[in-house]
Amino acid sequence: MIAQVYKEMLNAKSVIRQFSEFATARGKEIGYENVFDYSLGNPSVPVPQAFTDVMIDMLQNKNPMALHGYSQSLGIPEVREKVAASLNRRFGMNYTSGHIFMTSGAAGAIAHALRCVTVPGDEVLTFAPYFPEYGPYVNLTGAKLKIVPPSLADFQINFEAFTEMLTDKVMAVLINTPNNPSGIVYSAETLTRLAQTLTEKSEEYGHPIYLISDEPYREITFAGVEAPYVSKFYPYTLSCYSFSKSLSLPGERIGYMAVNPACPDAELFVPMCAQISRGTGHNCPASIIQLAVAEVLDETADLTVYETNMNLLYHELTALGFTCVKPGGTFYIFPKALEEDSVAFCQKATKYDLILVPGNSFGCPGYFRMAYCIDTEKVERSLAALRRFVREEYGIQ
Amino acid sequence: MIAQVYKEMLNAKSVIRQFSEFATARGKEIGYENVFDYSLGNPSVPVPQAFTDVMIDMLQNKNPMALHGYSQSLGIPEVREKVAASLNRRFGMNYTSGHIFMTSGAAGAIAHALRCVTVPGDEVLTFAPYFPEYGPYVNLTGAKLKIVPPSLADFQINFEAFTEMLTDKVMAVLINTPNNPSGIVYSAETLTRLAQTLTEKSEEYGHPIYLISDEPYREITFAGVEAPYVSKFYPYTLSCYSFSKSLSLPGERIGYMAVNPACPDAELFVPMCAQISRGTGHNCPASIIQLAVAEVLDETADLTVYETNMNLLYHELTALGFTCVKPGGTFYIFPKALEEDSVAFCQKATKYDLILVPGNSFGCPGYFRMAYCIDTEKVERSLAALRRFVREEYGIQ
Repeated sequence: MIAQVYKEMLNAKSVIRQFSEFATARGKEIGYENVFDYSLGNPSVPVPQAFTDVMIDMLQNKNPMALHGYSQSLGIPEVREKVAASLNRRFGMNYTSGHIFMTSGAAGAIAHALRCVTVPGDEVLTFAPYFPEYGPYVNLTGAKLKIVPPSLADFQINFEAFTEMLTDKVMAVLINTPNNPSGIVYSAETLTRLAQTLTEKSEEYGHPIYLISDEPYREITFAGVEAPYVSKFYPYTLSCYSFSKSLSLPGERIGYMAVNPACPDAELFVPMCAQISRGTGHNCPASIIQLAVAEVLDETADLTVYETNMNLLYHELTALGFTCVKPGGTFYIFPKALEEDSVAFCQKATKYDLILVPGNSFGCPGYFRMAYCIDTEKVERSLAALRRFVREEYGIQ
Repeated sequence: MIAQVYKEMLNAKSVIRQFSEFATARGKEIGYENVFDYSLGNPSVPVPQAFTDVMIDMLQNKNPMALHGYSQSLGIPEVREKVAASLNRRFGMNYTSGHIFMTSGAAGAIAHALRCVTVPGDEVLTFAPYFPEYGPYVNLTGAKLKIVPPSLADFQINFEAFTEMLTDKVMAVLINTPNNPSGIVYSAETLTRLAQTLTEKSEEYGHPIYLISDEPYREITFAGVEAPYVSKFYPYTLSCYSFSKSLSLPGERIGYMAVNPACPDAELFVPMCAQISRGTGHNCPASIIQLAVAEVLDETADLTVYETNMNLLYHELTALGFTCVKPGGTFYIFPKALEEDSVAFCQKATKYDLILVPGNSFGCPGYFRMAYCIDTEKVERSLAALRRFVREEYGIQ
């Protein structure tokens, strides 16, 4: 019979999607260029030309049997080697290909990491504000996601609440830095204290608590902000990466899970992932995409637009009196709304063709997210709408 | 803690893989061209040039943001439309894009189909001989795979055993035609009787029994053999397809699930699949691969080599006195071994650099599989080795 769990999920409509659909519909009325659509986190800059060149070169010159042939479910060995080498070079790690599992983007990586270290009934903690897909990602494995309340002053970690919730049932902690939706980068101090806490509690409970680090925005950081490599702080770290944002190719669905070599039994994880894949129907990423990405591992798309946009918005928002933690990276900003009900706030904003997303979706009501992965010219035009919105709705000049 | 279920799976080594690894190792000693490696089902002909041309054209001329941008987790709408149109044109169906869910190959399709119509504890039946990955595919969802014994005379369906095993607990039946490993195509008569049986039992039990039809070899059929389109026979059919074999691009991991439009609630399945994907970390196939495949839907690689190879092997095997059902498609043949212990039989064959795979892996001990997706010239050379093997080991002249 039709599985009820998935059928029932169809009734729950994502609030982000509702605002995004409004933006699309409104765009049909007034021209999409006139809708200040800050709803979705889609990269707005093209893939590096080097990627395109490598793709064309392989299609023209490589034996099609080798290019499109079966690859191991772990990923193509040379690709995994190159990923390891790039991480070692850039972050001073000592990965080998045996620590790298190629995945269909970060979602695939997180799905495997969760199944490696939890079983149904276990708890997984994450920190508000958080990416709402973590709910189904975790809960559909049979484990249970619990949300640690935010540290509103800085969107670092609320250690008091965290330590309280870190019971014996917690087998994994899921973090996301640079963070969607706050744009905040966890500091070295935060990560050091997180590692200390996890180490102490692991000892107390007699089992390791794994750190699953979701890092699709790792390469998007802003001037003056240091983004420490999470895995360096804690051996029991499974790093989940996607090239979607750094290379601007979200549709190509490629990423990986990297196991800290210092983790006990580190060499078990990747072969275990291949077993997990058999049950979930995961297949490693398309071979041609793996091979092409492996040639541009140290490149990124031109990501500077995001910092330009952030500065424009941060300047205007703070000038208008918004409470707002300055983002250290990503293409998100997460200010406090001007009324408690941030859904009402975002609904009012739509009258000004400003599409914002309420913080409720991210476990942080009273705030809202702007995804500023749009053209700078449009950000500039949106500032007048923003001023008009807060003046007419909230009397702020 | 490390999940034991996957850790323990690492101890179980696939017999197919052992024989395949032997072939690779032996190839290093005597040159791989001298190893008659019939162990693995990898396409041996190149992708159609039209696919390569479309890929290069898109990379050169399409806006990279559109080409590599986020796609819906259901698959790209125009691609799903084109897949539906192609199936309608070729098989007289009436699919719309709403019945097509794009997947990472057939494994992804089967993983979604299983989760649509079973819950943990349900039973799923398949028919020996069967593709051994069905074990983990089904059992890791929490449902339980049971194997209906073979109809050895023709490798169609053993209806007596099937009807007996088709209890109230069975929610889905998984078939594979053209079949790996037997090469047999289910006849219209078989499919009619299968549909009748399922309809009767569904009525008796008061719940539908779904048919999950795994069809990666659908396009590889031989002269004089009609391969009926399974879904035409039974409305509760979920067709699982992969382009791996028809287009010779197994590494690119692209396929789909197609829901019979006549199935009650047919329009629910595809959105449900998107929910399933959230939990499994499945992402739809790479966007560029979706877009390229959509342009060559009615093409195939040059598949004639498989029929040439089949005829050579079938002729020789029957001349040597093997019991052997003539394949109607695929690139497999599944003869009876010359002794009861087909593992011993295949081990003896390795002395002659013939790499065969014992039928035990496919739920059919006493038989063996040859995957003849290799160059015809190599098949021809292998015949002398085959003759020497059966003469020296079994005294057959």
